[in-house]
Amino acid sequence: MSKDAAPHPLLIEPDAAYRAGTATPSSVLAAHLAVIDARESEIAAFTALNRAGAAAAAEASTRRWKAGEPLSPIDGMVVGIKDVIETEDMPTGQGSPIWAGFHTRRDGAAVQALREAGAVVLGKTTTTEFATRHSFAATRNPHDIERTPGGSSSGSAAAVGAGMLGGALGTQVVGSIIRPSSYCGVVGYKPSFGALNRGGANDQLSQSCLGTIATSLNGAWGLATAIASRVGGDPGRVTLRGSERLPASRAPQRMALLKTAGWSQIEPGARIALDQEIHAIRQSGVELVSDEDGELAELEAALLDAWQLTERILSWEFAWPLRSYPHEKLSPPMQQRLAAGKAMNRDDYEAALARRDAIRQRFGRLAERVDCFVTLAATGAAPRVTDNTGSPAMNVPASLLGVPALTLPILQDSGLPMGLQLIGRNGQDADLMAVARWRLEHA
Amino acid sequence: MSKDAAPHPLLIEPDAAYRAGTATPSSVLAAHLAVIDARESEIAAFTALNRAGAAAAAEASTRRWKAGEPLSPIDGMVVGIKDVIETEDMPTGQGSPIWAGFHTRRDGAAVQALREAGAVVLGKTTTTEFATRHSFAATRNPHDIERTPGGSSSGSAAAVGAGMLGGALGTQVVGSIIRPSSYCGVVGYKPSFGALNRGGANDQLSQSCLGTIATSLNGAWGLATAIASRVGGDPGRVTLRGSERLPASRAPQRMALLKTAGWSQIEPGARIALDQEIHAIRQSGVELVSDEDGELAELEAALLDAWQLTERILSWEFAWPLRSYPHEKLSPPMQQRLAAGKAMNRDDYEAALARRDAIRQRFGRLAERVDCFVTLAATGAAPRVTDNTGSPAMNVPASLLGVPALTLPILQDSGLPMGLQLIGRNGQDADLMAVARWRLEHA
Repeated sequence: MSKDAAPHPLLIEPDAAYRAGTATPSSVLAAHLAVIDARESEIAAFTALNRAGAAAAAEASTRRWKAGEPLSPIDGMVVGIKDVIETEDMPTGQGSPIWAGFHTRRDGAAVQALREAGAVVLGKTTTTEFATRHSFAATRNPHDIERTPGGSSSGSAAAVGAGMLGGALGTQVVGSIIRPSSYCGVVGYKPSFGALNRGGANDQLSQSCLGTIATSLNGAWGLATAIASRVGGDPGRVTLRGSERLPASRAPQRMALLKTAGWSQIEPGARIALDQEIHAIRQSGVELVSDEDGELAELEAALLDAWQLTERILSWEFAWPLRSYPHEKLSPPMQQRLAAGKAMNRDDYEAALARRDAIRQRFGRLAERVDCFVTLAATGAAPRVTDNTGSPAMNVPASLLGVPALTLPILQDSGLPMGLQLIGRNGQDADLMAVARWRLEHA
Repeated sequence: MSKDAAPHPLLIEPDAAYRAGTATPSSVLAAHLAVIDARESEIAAFTALNRAGAAAAAEASTRRWKAGEPLSPIDGMVVGIKDVIETEDMPTGQGSPIWAGFHTRRDGAAVQALREAGAVVLGKTTTTEFATRHSFAATRNPHDIERTPGGSSSGSAAAVGAGMLGGALGTQVVGSIIRPSSYCGVVGYKPSFGALNRGGANDQLSQSCLGTIATSLNGAWGLATAIASRVGGDPGRVTLRGSERLPASRAPQRMALLKTAGWSQIEPGARIALDQEIHAIRQSGVELVSDEDGELAELEAALLDAWQLTERILSWEFAWPLRSYPHEKLSPPMQQRLAAGKAMNRDDYEAALARRDAIRQRFGRLAERVDCFVTLAATGAAPRVTDNTGSPAMNVPASLLGVPALTLPILQDSGLPMGLQLIGRNGQDADLMAVARWRLEHA
């Protein structure tokens, strides 16, 4: 790409318009609110909005930009917060009637960091029950309101995809950032496990991550690094490395096509799009290893029951707090999960952890000779369902492995958006971003 | 000790009287309540009591014992819950005016487990502000009400020491279980990091542990294993190994006397008591290595600034949520801690973590050739202060190292109780219990 060409739309800096003076945080907020007023009744992406608070924050940000003293590249970005993460000014319902209206009157760590970086917190976004599968919310896909937005970061992905927000926070324990981002046509980023502080996110699951959703890769990275530099990672963990601006692109030498369980569920249109992508990657001179590589084939075999293994781990970890809640206020799927957890003992759980560790070690060895892994972010476009949030089959591996993953909305299935998923090495998030940038610059 | 002799008072099983039929959970509850009615006005160990709930639980336990169907060895033990851990029936104030009266209406994981094991949850016990140094509570030491009970598990230790409870939950990030247990003349046990589930304990600090306080070693172990077998450890961590009954005693071959920072602060009476203990250990045929051992001396040198290192780690980890609270509702020391955290960046924090890891590795190498480490649980008897909770200097090492520690109330200073602290190897909690039992059986 020549330096003079307009950047790829997914590589627009979150503050480009503010720096250029073509917009202000207040004008951008007004534009987002106009979309909300026009479309929120059908999309239903929010559980709460704080219009007055957002207006004040946008005005303050506008003044900072005018004074040439922005706090960060995301100063003035209008953001939403997944409703599992606490906010000082709005309640946190966790997608469950048990916590509806519950208000701790403090910000989660990541929310605190975003405010300190100048972000304009506009609202809380819908989520499935305790960020798992069942949805009490009626959120719809902005590209086709008869389709699911995906879950569990449903409202975050739908609102960013609809133009209601510039970015949003999500969380992922199985597929809750990458899948809805794919369905809603936005960039989604799940960091390495522990890299972003989950304080106040009401979740201490052993593979859950706080992550970001945005209209550009730069925005997703900017949100993440704003958090990393201000409140770090989970206690005892290292946080993201790298500057607050998206790293320069890096051409990979070798990528691996990851065919895991879920591969057989890929929709025909999605398969065609992936095949074209594979062809393009090879044309660009990158070696793309596939399952003719014995070590990769062994990893894929080890990942065949990754979803069941994930469910075993989560069932035990969910047993508390689920057993402490009024049973009748849990959805039937959640009641089943509780029963599954109660049927396990600590030995079952520790055996599952040991198996996860073994798979992680296998992945780590392979990852030493591969720049990144490539696969689809979902099995196809958002399905035409409203009673579930689609299959997380393509998202299970990166979550189980605890490694960074992102989705780029550069593919299509049935005329609807679909994401290309890139999966990186543990702790090497900035490098994954550099490779993703290379892919966009060479599209 | 002959098999026929009465057991050491610190080795009485928590259900001994119920099995012998000399008491029932209801009669024991009545006895505890009589002490509470007589002494709570001066000791102030509780933030809340649920007399009706406890009576019903004790009656149910009494029926189970009569039917010969107890749920666990701690079925019918009357317990208190440190007021940082959520309880369904009582609010959770975290020792701070910010959270006074806050009620989540669910049980923390450990509380849930104790109820499932048949424990009688009687009340919430006082703690210092967010379980750190400053106390808004007026809890007094049951052995001398002009003295501090220690902190931060102040009410738990004071209530067990006074006979108001049979056991209690505490938490420790620096010295919050071992020190108050020492001051109040009870057994305190801080497990290996991560071994007991902190769900609902409002604390995800990277070296904080949930632990137990009881009138006997068997009680402390019984409470811990009741939790371990029902809700396990922190997500992603292994929990305690071993049966719900205290392991058989094991004679150590080699112990190490750990002289760390704080050694110079030991009170004269405490030094005499420790010297006598050292003599007794050597007389029993155990090799007691001291700082003539080069590797031990190096460990002690590495631990010299352990308290400052701990404070650096905690200051960063406390920056959230402290920065999210109304500043004027934090105590002056807590405001200072917040300022210290704000002055740090992620690199400072990660450098501190790396240093902690290095010390842990050094300890691990030494621990391979030592059965356990021995030192005092506090620098002396409870000091005659009510404006602070005494020095945690003797508790810093085990907390920083993440290894199991316990205190046995078998020493005295100035006619007041003081604990002998035993420190074990990471994950080898049951073995530490076996060695502690050996010490009591050979007293």
